[in-house]
Amino acid sequence: MEKVDIKEIFRHAPAYLGQPVQVNGWVRTIRTSKAFGFIELNDGTFFANLQVVFGEELANFAQVAKISLSSPITVEGQLVESPGAKQPFELKAEKIEIISFCSPEYPLQKKRHTFEYLRTIAHLRPRTNTFAAVFRVRSVIAYAIHKFFQERGFVYVHTPIITGSDAEGAGEMFRVTTLDLNQLPRDESGRVDFRADFFGKETNLTVSGQLEVESYCLAFNKVYTFGPTFRAENSNTARHAAEFWMIEPEIAFADLADNMKLAEEMLKFIINYVMENAPEEMAFFNQFVDKDLFARLENVVKSDFGHLTYSEAIEILRKSGNKFEYPIEWGRDLQTEHERYLTEQVFKKPLFVTDYPAAIKAFYMRLNDDRQTVAAMDLLVPGIGEIIGGSQREERLDVLEQRMAELGLKQEDYGWYLDLRRYGGTKHAGYGLGFERVIMYLTGMSNIRDVISFPRTVKSAEF
Amino acid sequence: MEKVDIKEIFRHAPAYLGQPVQVNGWVRTIRTSKAFGFIELNDGTFFANLQVVFGEELANFAQVAKISLSSPITVEGQLVESPGAKQPFELKAEKIEIISFCSPEYPLQKKRHTFEYLRTIAHLRPRTNTFAAVFRVRSVIAYAIHKFFQERGFVYVHTPIITGSDAEGAGEMFRVTTLDLNQLPRDESGRVDFRADFFGKETNLTVSGQLEVESYCLAFNKVYTFGPTFRAENSNTARHAAEFWMIEPEIAFADLADNMKLAEEMLKFIINYVMENAPEEMAFFNQFVDKDLFARLENVVKSDFGHLTYSEAIEILRKSGNKFEYPIEWGRDLQTEHERYLTEQVFKKPLFVTDYPAAIKAFYMRLNDDRQTVAAMDLLVPGIGEIIGGSQREERLDVLEQRMAELGLKQEDYGWYLDLRRYGGTKHAGYGLGFERVIMYLTGMSNIRDVISFPRTVKSAEF
Repeated sequence: MEKVDIKEIFRHAPAYLGQPVQVNGWVRTIRTSKAFGFIELNDGTFFANLQVVFGEELANFAQVAKISLSSPITVEGQLVESPGAKQPFELKAEKIEIISFCSPEYPLQKKRHTFEYLRTIAHLRPRTNTFAAVFRVRSVIAYAIHKFFQERGFVYVHTPIITGSDAEGAGEMFRVTTLDLNQLPRDESGRVDFRADFFGKETNLTVSGQLEVESYCLAFNKVYTFGPTFRAENSNTARHAAEFWMIEPEIAFADLADNMKLAEEMLKFIINYVMENAPEEMAFFNQFVDKDLFARLENVVKSDFGHLTYSEAIEILRKSGNKFEYPIEWGRDLQTEHERYLTEQVFKKPLFVTDYPAAIKAFYMRLNDDRQTVAAMDLLVPGIGEIIGGSQREERLDVLEQRMAELGLKQEDYGWYLDLRRYGGTKHAGYGLGFERVIMYLTGMSNIRDVISFPRTVKSAEF
Repeated sequence: MEKVDIKEIFRHAPAYLGQPVQVNGWVRTIRTSKAFGFIELNDGTFFANLQVVFGEELANFAQVAKISLSSPITVEGQLVESPGAKQPFELKAEKIEIISFCSPEYPLQKKRHTFEYLRTIAHLRPRTNTFAAVFRVRSVIAYAIHKFFQERGFVYVHTPIITGSDAEGAGEMFRVTTLDLNQLPRDESGRVDFRADFFGKETNLTVSGQLEVESYCLAFNKVYTFGPTFRAENSNTARHAAEFWMIEPEIAFADLADNMKLAEEMLKFIINYVMENAPEEMAFFNQFVDKDLFARLENVVKSDFGHLTYSEAIEILRKSGNKFEYPIEWGRDLQTEHERYLTEQVFKKPLFVTDYPAAIKAFYMRLNDDRQTVAAMDLLVPGIGEIIGGSQREERLDVLEQRMAELGLKQEDYGWYLDLRRYGGTKHAGYGLGFERVIMYLTGMSNIRDVISFPRTVKSAEF
């Protein structure tokens, strides 16, 4: 008898009607009467359950009728039409094998649970509708991203997770060590001697693969990273995790305009791909998590994204007459309230803000001719604010060196990075996309802890 | 004028013949005479170079004729036929813009370099033929793996990198901490107080996502991980790195036979995909790195993989009359020399060895009815030995608990893992595939440092 995924049945039901099939899955609900019963069976391959009908002709009818929720079973039977029911077909069981009885202590009984509670049973929550939808969509988005870049000839680069450079954002990095902390080796001055550490020096977890991937960009032209990044930020918010995944494309012979074009195409591609490939899950989010979801995503896909310089943005905000918590002043960074006002109230669609003051942006961003601003871009989207940040990179060795000197960055720490300007340097650009932020945007989920399988946050690294 | 990737020209040359095009790239070689010259131009999108012909009608002919290797240029011209040349077309330049002059100190001049030397300039080595091929193939293999699993309905799971459990392989893990090592907080007994650490306890870098992904397998049925894993092993060999990527699929309602079927299909899929999607790079490896490569890979794709139990393997090895360095004895693990003998001399094709002694395998592998062996499998391939290791997992709570007790593993450290047996437990199986090992196998590269962008090994975490 053919063993079939429930997804396969839903997608190609007519082909299976009247056919004998074998299905394996977990009991999601069961209703019984004296002589027959209905099981909603989920096998994990599909969002919806398959209805199984069984009757007292089963040898183990009494046992099946008492089966506990989440018990795994094997059903053999025939797929038959089921007119008038939620689904136009159901599986008429000829044989049900109970693989195991789920313990009655199973914490996911039918009643509703809060997301907070479900975080404490992160190993079981993907069995609920919400988290089944979240984590399948997470997977589909990940693949959409790879597909987008690979089909356009981008090379996927695994930049290192453990980094020997603590030059960037050192204060917020996690140290990596094999030293025995209870018996640390000391140097002459009594300080910890990292020469005895695994790598022979201090190492940390990466905060970004951008600098490293630039070296691959200047070899392969079009590259991207997709890997975990880490921030030891002591911020306990719904949007921060210590461990998250990031995508960082980088393109050569490209300027800020090319960069924005790529980001716009990518975001639209991802949304279209997920709507097509996880329609049941997306409908669930739209119905139960965020009623504006489809309208918002459709607006993204159908809009030509807006463009605005930072200076223009400051002018618009200043003249808006709107009361903001944070002051509007040229030279200060935009806050989420400003970003959301621009994209939601003024433009009513996604919006690139470009050419930020050099003083509030990173050293590697390309200085504009005004010497005040850099060729940076942030993509703002309704409902969230910034979702992508990027820039054209400074390819001029002398300008880059001067900027590093101004910021007190030591050239010897960046020798190889400066080499990229000495040896075949050309204009290039790239951006970073926080993967969890995209998942939250595409699902309407509002806490980052609910889109990461086993989230790592301040004081929490369970499982 | 249309800006075109060199790959696009190679793949669809006829469409561009006679057309004006713009190409951006780096000068790989240049030959000049008084009145004309040839540039081999590489833009990173394609393995081969495009030949550019230029003549003294160019306004900057003298400058172009003196251009240094690796300088980036923009060429505008017409694609014309080039009968008799290596390629049937070339780009006749009408205009060449020199974007920047590569410094004459550029270390990658035309002469050959050793792989050892190239590791010291890991930021530049992807510009060489060998490493351009390695890292494009690495990217193509990564995508092939995603494609294989996604098209079969597998859910991609990001298991955590930072783990709070040091239960498995603790001795070889990297610690993650934000404590100031020069001012460690101490508890009452004078030992380091990890309650003050970022996560409020001791944390390490993961050595495997398997246990975590099992929880997703029992929700989604078919899942896989693909992420970085870490070993703080002090082994300075050509096959060990401290940071490497691993793929770990896990399937529910599945036994060891299903597991082997999946592994065989996956490996064949990857090889076929890479041969089709990186043919130039693969031809390069076959010609310059490993003359047996194509024959070996073809043998993998065309074979039905062999099957053999560990006990049978011991018998064959014992009776072989072959002299091995390590002794052959039931209960000892197979060494690479034994594995290679079996797959290369006896079977002459890939081979699954199954049912290893329980004592040499991990606690979570399913105990066979003989109570001596477990439902483990290793896939051995000619030329390398073991490339995949996996097992059916122990789904019986009582058997698992007993085995853990025998090994001294504390149940409280594995509470959530045991839950997976209490709540809806069913047979499931999975395996691990070292990503770099696959790259080495598919390229013939013999040192793991040469298939990782910026390798991390004992005493080395450069860039």
